[in-house]
This record gives sequence, structure tokens and C-alpha cells, in this order.
Amino acid sequence: MSEKKKIAIVLSGNGVYDGAEIHEATLTMLAIAQQGASYELFAPNVEQAHVINHLTGEEMPEKRNVLIEAARIARGNIADLNTYQASQFDALVFPGGFGAAKNLSTFAFEGPDCTVNPDVEKAVKETVAAQKPIGALCISPAVITRILKDVEVTIGQDSGTAGAIEKMGGKHVNTTHGEVVHDSKYNVYTTPCYMLDASIDQIADGATNIIKAILKAI
Amino acid sequence: MSEKKKIAIVLSGNGVYDGAEIHEATLTMLAIAQQGASYELFAPNVEQAHVINHLTGEEMPEKRNVLIEAARIARGNIADLNTYQASQFDALVFPGGFGAAKNLSTFAFEGPDCTVNPDVEKAVKETVAAQKPIGALCISPAVITRILKDVEVTIGQDSGTAGAIEKMGGKHVNTTHGEVVHDSKYNVYTTPCYMLDASIDQIADGATNIIKAILKAI
Repeated sequence: MSEKKKIAIVLSGNGVYDGAEIHEATLTMLAIAQQGASYELFAPNVEQAHVINHLTGEEMPEKRNVLIEAARIARGNIADLNTYQASQFDALVFPGGFGAAKNLSTFAFEGPDCTVNPDVEKAVKETVAAQKPIGALCISPAVITRILKDVEVTIGQDSGTAGAIEKMGGKHVNTTHGEVVHDSKYNVYTTPCYMLDASIDQIADGATNIIKAILKAI
Repeated sequence: MSEKKKIAIVLSGNGVYDGAEIHEATLTMLAIAQQGASYELFAPNVEQAHVINHLTGEEMPEKRNVLIEAARIARGNIADLNTYQASQFDALVFPGGFGAAKNLSTFAFEGPDCTVNPDVEKAVKETVAAQKPIGALCISPAVITRILKDVEVTIGQDSGTAGAIEKMGGKHVNTTHGEVVHDSKYNVYTTPCYMLDASIDQIADGATNIIKAILKAI
């Protein structure tokens, strides 16, 4: 029997408006487990861009750490992203949430001119160099595009975000619920999830489909 | 076609060690959506008992509000539990996490002599009076037992917690992954989830099974 495939998941905090989208993160973990693979969780050990009160949408006068907050989704089982080694995993997956655009990169604030967290950039480049697949949900494909440039991705159908992706050198493909776009040059898989107006069972479908596509390829 | 059944879910924060267990909360929402029903989310508008760093397990010198933190799991769509009306819902469900034993009640600190948040107590009693089912996952059955007393529940196999439940007047039934105990007197459904050493797909099974049992009964 072959060994279980192992996927690294990168979280960007804990909560859609300033961190990792909780349903996308949880349902990515579930999809991996249900399909007979295993996962390990990572997050960068940096301060969040800001803290949003998810009840009111307003900024709170607080500071929170991305790794410490992401540990809530991980039930404590999470490592600093700077310890990630592509050689130890079969694939690398990024759930979405504004944390991808605020903590993993500055895309939410600077659009196509954004900078990317160096640990994220290193993890992505190392995984591409190892010819292992990368998955990105929701808004995360924007971060991948900023790193890889001429990559084909989807963030659903939002024309503003799609335009920013094209400005960064990427090619955007419009998709709807549960669809997965594959870039064969870099071996990158993307799916829109909550970048579309979606119900939680549609997020489960998207997570299941992207993990299925990745596991089929490795 | 009959109208969609609607289930109220009560969250106790956001994170296993001081709030709602994130996987149990998310997978309860998913189970409801996948089975064709709808849900609304509630949490008490109170300060958390404390804030735990989920990476280290240590207490943090911070204050957080249960409703505001629970709004992260809810993507902002959540109401103060004091607005809950049993007449508006077909069932009431409590995911687990230490938040149930720290914020919804003081069970984690005071065991069988614990007190229960008055909004939680009112919601449970009103739902029982309306003869509508209540579901409780993980450690939440302890809270239900403190309110209803002579109720039959499961929290899995932990003898200390089971003993505390018996001291509060309840009857404890040992169970394993995915099993659901039904108390016919009060119409209460319980399942152990992370009170057992479980993988995330086993939590999905538990959430699916308890929601299936509840929806079958309403």
C-alpha cells in the first residue's frame, strides 16, 4: 500500500475579514481527510495587518498574531511557515479569506503593486521548483499570481480582481461554484469559493473538487 | 413543497480552548445545509471567561467578547442569543468547544456546581417547553444537563465528565465516534465529537448524524 499523501495548508489568521476564511480552511482539511490523505498546517509568524470586528465590520484597536490566531482553526497543531520544506509534502494549499490579501500579501491595500510575505513567496517558489502542485481558493490566487506572474487562475467572476490579476501578468478564467482551473505550466489549481456569493455546501464542493484534482495529479 | 426547516445554532466564541470548537461549528452548519435545511447563528453577548493562546495553551492578557468572536465563524451573520425565540425555529443546536464550559456555563471551573448563562438557560427551557428538539455536541451536553437535570446524554467516554453529569442528575451513556444518544423525555440529541480523540472526518460524521436524527424528528 502506498503511503498517505501529505498536503501542507497555509492559513492567514482566523476569520474572513482579517484572516483565513474559517469554512474554506475547515472544509479543505475535511476534503483532504475524507479523500484519504493527511495534512499539516502552517502560518506566517507575523502581526495581522489589522483586527476587524466581524459583527460590525469596523477595525478594533488591537494587535493579533497570524500564527497564534490561525492556531485556533488548527486546534494548536500548526507550525511557523518558515519551517515549511517542499520536500516533506506532496502539495501546498492556500484557503482564502481577506487574510491572504492582508497578511500573506498586501493585495487588499495595494492591488497589483502588492508585496508578498517572504515566507509565502519562498514556500510557493520552492514548491514550484519541486514540481509539486499548489492549490489556491477564493482570493489566494491573487497572491500566487503576484509571485509566479504568467499563471492561469480563477477568482470567480469579480471583474476588478480579475483585472488586477491580469495586470500582475496572470490570465484570469471566469468560473462558477465548484469549478477548478488548472495551470499546467506551474501546476497550480484554483477555485472561487466565497469570491462568489456561496452557501457553505458550495464551499465544501469547491474544496472537495480542488483537493480531488490535486490528489489525482500526485 | 414544505418550507425549509430552520435550526438555530448557539456558538460560544471562536476556538476550541476558550470558545466554540471551529470544526464542530462549521461542520454542523455544513450538515444542516447539505440536508436541505437552513440555519441562523446566535451567541451570548458577554465577555469570554478568558483568552487562550492556542499555540502555547497559555492565557493571554486580553479581553474578548463571545458574540464578536463567534461572528468570525458566522461571517458576520449572527445575532445576540437574547433575541432567540423558540417559536421561530424547528430545533436548537449547541456545537462544543471549551466555550460551552467556560462562556455558556462555568462547568470547566466549577464542575457539577456550575452556573449557566441566563440567555442559554432561557433558550433551552423555551425550546423544551415548545417541544422542539435540542442537539448538543462534545462537552455541550454538560450544559444541557445542568439546566434540565434528569436527561440522558453522551459526552463519549471520559469518566470524569460522565461522573459530573451524573452528579447534576443526568444519565450518561458511553458512545464512540458518530453515535447519537436521544433522550425522549426532553427530546435532546447528543454526540461526542472531539470529546473523543477524533479526526476531522469523524467530526463531520458526528455532525451529519445528529442533524439527520433531528431533521427526521421534526
